[in-house]
Amino acid sequence: MGGGSHNKRLDCPSTNGTSQDPMEPNAAHRIEMPPASMEVHRVETPPARSSVQKLKSKLKETFFPDDPLRQFKGQPARKKWILGAQYVFPILQWAPHYSLKLFKSDVVSGLTIASLAIPQGISYAKLANLPPIVGLYSSFVPPLVYAVFGSSRDLAVGPVSIASLILGSMLRQEVSPSNEPLLFLQLAFTSTFFAGFFQASLGLLRLGFLIDFLSKAILIGFMAGAAVIVSLQQLKSLLGITHFTPQMGLVPVLTSVFHNTKEWSWQTILMGFCFLVLLLLARHVSIKKPKLFWVSAGAPLASVILSTLIVFAFKAHHHGIRVIGKLQEGLNPPSWNMLHFHGAHLGLVIKTGFVTGIISLTEGIAVGRTFAALKDYRVDGNKEMIAIGLMNIVGSSTSCYVTTGAFSRSAVNHNAGAKTAVSNIVMSVTVMVTLLFLMPLFQYTPNLVLGAIIVTAVVGLIDVPAAYNIWKTDKFDFLVMLCAFLGVLFVSVQEGLAIAVGVSIFKILLQITRPRTVVLGSIPGSDIYRNVHHYKEAVGVPGFLILSIEAPINFANSMYLNERILRWIEEHDEKDSAKKLSSIQYVILDLSAVSAIDTTGVTLIKDLKKAIGKKGIEASTILVLVNPLGEVIEKLQRAEETRDFMRPENLYLTVGEAVASLSSSMKTHSPTLYDEEAQADIPRPN
Amino acid sequence: MGGGSHNKRLDCPSTNGTSQDPMEPNAAHRIEMPPASMEVHRVETPPARSSVQKLKSKLKETFFPDDPLRQFKGQPARKKWILGAQYVFPILQWAPHYSLKLFKSDVVSGLTIASLAIPQGISYAKLANLPPIVGLYSSFVPPLVYAVFGSSRDLAVGPVSIASLILGSMLRQEVSPSNEPLLFLQLAFTSTFFAGFFQASLGLLRLGFLIDFLSKAILIGFMAGAAVIVSLQQLKSLLGITHFTPQMGLVPVLTSVFHNTKEWSWQTILMGFCFLVLLLLARHVSIKKPKLFWVSAGAPLASVILSTLIVFAFKAHHHGIRVIGKLQEGLNPPSWNMLHFHGAHLGLVIKTGFVTGIISLTEGIAVGRTFAALKDYRVDGNKEMIAIGLMNIVGSSTSCYVTTGAFSRSAVNHNAGAKTAVSNIVMSVTVMVTLLFLMPLFQYTPNLVLGAIIVTAVVGLIDVPAAYNIWKTDKFDFLVMLCAFLGVLFVSVQEGLAIAVGVSIFKILLQITRPRTVVLGSIPGSDIYRNVHHYKEAVGVPGFLILSIEAPINFANSMYLNERILRWIEEHDEKDSAKKLSSIQYVILDLSAVSAIDTTGVTLIKDLKKAIGKKGIEASTILVLVNPLGEVIEKLQRAEETRDFMRPENLYLTVGEAVASLSSSMKTHSPTLYDEEAQADIPRPN
Repeated sequence: MGGGSHNKRLDCPSTNGTSQDPMEPNAAHRIEMPPASMEVHRVETPPARSSVQKLKSKLKETFFPDDPLRQFKGQPARKKWILGAQYVFPILQWAPHYSLKLFKSDVVSGLTIASLAIPQGISYAKLANLPPIVGLYSSFVPPLVYAVFGSSRDLAVGPVSIASLILGSMLRQEVSPSNEPLLFLQLAFTSTFFAGFFQASLGLLRLGFLIDFLSKAILIGFMAGAAVIVSLQQLKSLLGITHFTPQMGLVPVLTSVFHNTKEWSWQTILMGFCFLVLLLLARHVSIKKPKLFWVSAGAPLASVILSTLIVFAFKAHHHGIRVIGKLQEGLNPPSWNMLHFHGAHLGLVIKTGFVTGIISLTEGIAVGRTFAALKDYRVDGNKEMIAIGLMNIVGSSTSCYVTTGAFSRSAVNHNAGAKTAVSNIVMSVTVMVTLLFLMPLFQYTPNLVLGAIIVTAVVGLIDVPAAYNIWKTDKFDFLVMLCAFLGVLFVSVQEGLAIAVGVSIFKILLQITRPRTVVLGSIPGSDIYRNVHHYKEAVGVPGFLILSIEAPINFANSMYLNERILRWIEEHDEKDSAKKLSSIQYVILDLSAVSAIDTTGVTLIKDLKKAIGKKGIEASTILVLVNPLGEVIEKLQRAEETRDFMRPENLYLTVGEAVASLSSSMKTHSPTLYDEEAQADIPRPN
Repeated sequence: MGGGSHNKRLDCPSTNGTSQDPMEPNAAHRIEMPPASMEVHRVETPPARSSVQKLKSKLKETFFPDDPLRQFKGQPARKKWILGAQYVFPILQWAPHYSLKLFKSDVVSGLTIASLAIPQGISYAKLANLPPIVGLYSSFVPPLVYAVFGSSRDLAVGPVSIASLILGSMLRQEVSPSNEPLLFLQLAFTSTFFAGFFQASLGLLRLGFLIDFLSKAILIGFMAGAAVIVSLQQLKSLLGITHFTPQMGLVPVLTSVFHNTKEWSWQTILMGFCFLVLLLLARHVSIKKPKLFWVSAGAPLASVILSTLIVFAFKAHHHGIRVIGKLQEGLNPPSWNMLHFHGAHLGLVIKTGFVTGIISLTEGIAVGRTFAALKDYRVDGNKEMIAIGLMNIVGSSTSCYVTTGAFSRSAVNHNAGAKTAVSNIVMSVTVMVTLLFLMPLFQYTPNLVLGAIIVTAVVGLIDVPAAYNIWKTDKFDFLVMLCAFLGVLFVSVQEGLAIAVGVSIFKILLQITRPRTVVLGSIPGSDIYRNVHHYKEAVGVPGFLILSIEAPINFANSMYLNERILRWIEEHDEKDSAKKLSSIQYVILDLSAVSAIDTTGVTLIKDLKKAIGKKGIEASTILVLVNPLGEVIEKLQRAEETRDFMRPENLYLTVGEAVASLSSSMKTHSPTLYDEEAQADIPRPN
């Protein structure tokens, strides 16, 4: 009768608890001999800790899972100061060891990313409805700030497509960039300030885990949707349309494009198409042969120069090809006087700052972590948030808009052999030179080439293989991805994102609300108990119903668990009576996977005990708990209603021991319950 | 070396896997003999199911956990029809067996609750800023509807204090009940319609689990807060103030009360105080001696009669005591023409309907379940929602406002010996008689006695012992309770509720974001592995780090788990090298408690494997998984990156077997790793 463990244990004198090895620590208090004279391990209450201690350790796990102060332990005071300074300014970690060899690598990579940053900066600023020069300003100051505070060695800092798109589209809801350009610029800088403020606060308050709620599936869907939206926006410059819709959605943009076919300019289309093909080809070459990274890295600047020369030579700007126009020379003017923390648009500005801040933070951290993993160093998420936040706060008062680590440029930086943040400094200096002396050269740069550069840059955000992999692994994640993608395309960028986050959280809540309960059976020849619907050889033990609950028990699922467990018992009873087996005498609840419980959960255990007690006909059925974890034991013990469960006959350390111990007492108490016929049916191990 | 299980298994020939018992099912495919010649059970992939099958079973578990169609299975067609009719109209279940004996009990209890329902109905209608007669209408029609559709035998149906309070306060945000009484009434009926609509929809769509999000802790805090707010509102009638604030919060009401001390009428205060003491005393008697339930049940009606007589005899209404005034005679007039599904206030009406619907549903279901558990019958939550919803939809077109099962009246009903829903019918008939003939008697009923009745009724909602119990069991639940309580007092009724629900959900999400990871150790003399910080006798196995993850792995916690697990390894390495023990060769992840995984989680496993592989110095550390559950196995197998883990040397069914099997191969591969000195330190079982 009973599980295999019972027989095995009795057969094995070597496992008898009385054989004390003198080398065992704490051997004295581990042996517990129940009346049935077999070894049963007791469930222990965890070591007592005060509420304050518990709160402290919980706070530490929540906010300092990486234990950042560990390296300071046991160091002399001077060393602590140095470590502290290095912690705040990561530049102090690598600057003292900096060498000429590293510098050579950094100059090459810095110049390479500068050749990308200049045309992309101008393009992304236009995407955000800002003056093109703001894009260059934003590639000058923020990289310098990041070089001091940032801990990634590969991040190439500057404006990025998605944050630019969101900033532009959100602000445009209330203010028109063409009618009120100054107000629009002020709102953009103020939003940038708030973005930096939120980013730095998340880092300082160690709430960085909030960005984890943007899961990979969400990001893949969101990025792809944003890439489509961004590309559609470029139809304006690529087709030469003058009356373009201010809306962002797929439908209004396509409607507007095909409504204004008269405005299409064939010269623009031809030239745009050529440069687009050129840039996409360059990109393709670099993907196929990563060593030729400089082809795609240099192509945008080459296209800008080439197209500018063509326009200048053929006076194409008189033939319908629109150009950037005159740009102001000189370095970033101060803009702190343009920050407005009051007025009618404050709500919008805070919201925009929050959304762009979170999105650009997610991109920056993800990029930093990706390359850190490749080169096997670590990036501290919370520190990076502070660095990116500071960079945007400083940027907002020096005429920069939202910046972060850009994926494509960081990849080029990495491939070009960047060793430290000096490559960002080199890029920044190059941009400075451009700002000071080369601005007039951009006067005849056609808008279409900027459009082609943006399209080429965002095409890489559409990651079809990753989407296919998600479809294969997890259908629900794929649904979340689709929500993000379609939401961005058909609703709006920020709402698409919100919908996808909502759906992901709903999934988690649904998992919590409907936790799995499984029936365990004994795996013959062992004392292992596993899900009978998963392991075909696992068989039930007559007289027992062994259930495992696979989630924390709380208010959201107690009612469900109550109904579900009672249904298991009823179904099991029906099946048993059909097979003429004895009815259930013990319901064993395996709580190994119940990591937490709350007051409603404690009430559930009490209610179950009562309900199960009423089920039995001859003898009442008894509820037995197995392996409750520390927190669960504590709460069951503290609530008056469930203190009974703490008695050894209701509490076992393993299912095997519970079955072994209980089935022996079952035989003693009610020998008539098992008739010979039924017993022949029962598969018995050994 | 290694865990106890290894030695034990080798010592026990009886557990050797080759001994096949002919009575064992599936014995053939359970034996797997690994090269190390010890028994190791294989982790199996769960039986293959198509995505459609999985979706179907998931939907069934989510929406039909109680399997309502089970009773129909295998029944003849005629029986199915009868069962179906009984399922829709629970009255058909008990009506055929109804007897005179049951009727006698029901008449007594019905008259008892009628004597409560009449004064309370009038009072609660005033609380909702509605004409008093609407409270009586609402005690006439809804009980009849419930008697047909409801499945609780004890629920006493009618208006309740909290829903009345919320309805009144929400509608008053936009419409003044004194300036536009007709519009206010229309909005109240329309809100009632929407409340019923939401309630019935939740039941029909089987989304009843949504009300579980109002946990016990929230409800206790919320009810107590609402009781205070409701009592404060009664200061108007108890002090005789004419210029009372239309706001509900603690601060504005107290300010208004003490600002208008000139309006206080000593006659009202004196008389109100006497009746309040009388009613509270009656309540106290019934609590002390439940058999004297009729004392508190009859007291309100007695007080109404007595106070009316006093007012009439002394002409007290000429001395500053305010009375109800003339009430219209006759039954409920139809009100479907007063339902407005358009216009300026539609949004408010829908919101009010939603909030009052959810709140009253929660109260009704909780009351029904409480008494069902006492009498040991079952109440089907989703069916109850449909019944309560229908009752409100019908009510909204017959001049009734939101009704549900009231806790205090249901308790009286139960104590008075109610057997079936006939007691509701008796109450309804009594109210009908009152409406038809007795209305003029209420003309001189003073408002102060209604106030005293309400205060007495809501005092019972403040449950201090339950609050203390929550404090003892779970500090966080107590915090949630406080949020609800203080939110209701100082912010507003509906926002206090929203705050508390938000905080509860935040707690669940935090648990998910920061799951516990624990280090397991071997319990000497067994093959059991448990948390070393909980079980003092559990000891680590040299060369192994055994970690258990106690939550589903998903996007919200993958990053944390990654950092936390790597930190465990580092800390363990430091400790080991301090003790001169060998470094970790195997990291064993026990996934028994990981009930689900998503694509981000799958990536985590891959990343961990890579990161752990890099840790080792001499030989690289290997990641081993133990007991992944069905869903986790499937996903690990489907993702290309983690298919490696499906090989038997990376996957074990129990920690014991993994340690036993791996430690034998460890000795073979790297015999130099263990020096004698270190080995002497290691506690060895057996």
